[in-house]
Amino acid sequence: MYKNILCAVDITPEGDAVLNKASLLAEKNNATLYVVHVIEYSFFPKDYQKELEDDVSPKINKLAKKYSVHKKNCYIKFGQGYREICELAEKKDCDLIILGNHSKSGIQALMGSTANAVIQHAVCDVLLIKKFD
Amino acid sequence: MYKNILCAVDITPEGDAVLNKASLLAEKNNATLYVVHVIEYSFFPKDYQKELEDDVSPKINKLAKKYSVHKKNCYIKFGQGYREICELAEKKDCDLIILGNHSKSGIQALMGSTANAVIQHAVCDVLLIKKFD
Repeated sequence: MYKNILCAVDITPEGDAVLNKASLLAEKNNATLYVVHVIEYSFFPKDYQKELEDDVSPKINKLAKKYSVHKKNCYIKFGQGYREICELAEKKDCDLIILGNHSKSGIQALMGSTANAVIQHAVCDVLLIKKFD
Repeated sequence: MYKNILCAVDITPEGDAVLNKASLLAEKNNATLYVVHVIEYSFFPKDYQKELEDDVSPKINKLAKKYSVHKKNCYIKFGQGYREICELAEKKDCDLIILGNHSKSGIQALMGSTANAVIQHAVCDVLLIKKFD
C-alpha cells in the first residue's frame, strides 16, 4: 500500500515511539523508511550549524539504527520544519509522512505547528502519532 | 499494530478511495474496521433527519459492503463532524482514525475543518488521506 515512508523525528522518547510505529508500518507495507530530523533554524552561523549537526547526527543515527533504518536514509535538515519535511517527501517519492503531534518542550514546541503545516502542504498521506504506548 | 480503526467517509469517489485505503490497512493490521458518516447538522426536524438517514444509509451500507465492512460496524451520526468521529472512536476503543482531507463540495466543504478538528481532539493516531489513486 505504501512504498516510501518518511518519518520526522526529534530526539525525545516521543521521537523514539513515533519511529517505532513508523518502522512497524514500513515493515507491514514492505516500504522503504526514511528518517528526517529538522533543526528549525537556518540563520545560525555556518560554524554553529556544523556544531549542531555534529551533536545531533550520532543521536539520530543511533535512533535510526535501533529500528534498522539504514544511515543513508537518515537526513538532518536546517530550515522550516514543514517545508523541509514536505520537500524531502516529494524528492524521495514518499506516499506517507509520519510525525508526532504533541511535543511541547524546547525547540520542539514548534512541532505542533509543524504538524499542522505538513498536513496543509503535503501532497501525500499524513499519519499523526498522538498515542505513545 | 492497530486493533480498531474508524474510517470517516462521505458519499463521493473520494470517500470510496479513503475507505479502500482504510480496508487495506485494517487487513494488514488484522484490525476491526468501523465506518462512520456524519451529517453535519443536528437542528433539522426529526422527520427530515429520518429522511436524510433513509437516503444516506443504503449508500453507506453499499460502500461498506464493497470493502467487506459488516453492516453492524457502520454508523450514521448527526452533529458536529469532529465531535461525532472522536466520540465514536473513543467508544469503540479505536487506535486509529482515517479520514480524507480535501473534499470541497456541498456540505463536505466542511470536511477540511473537520479533519483539523479531529486532529486537535482525537486521543488516538490520525491518518489523513490526501492522495487518491
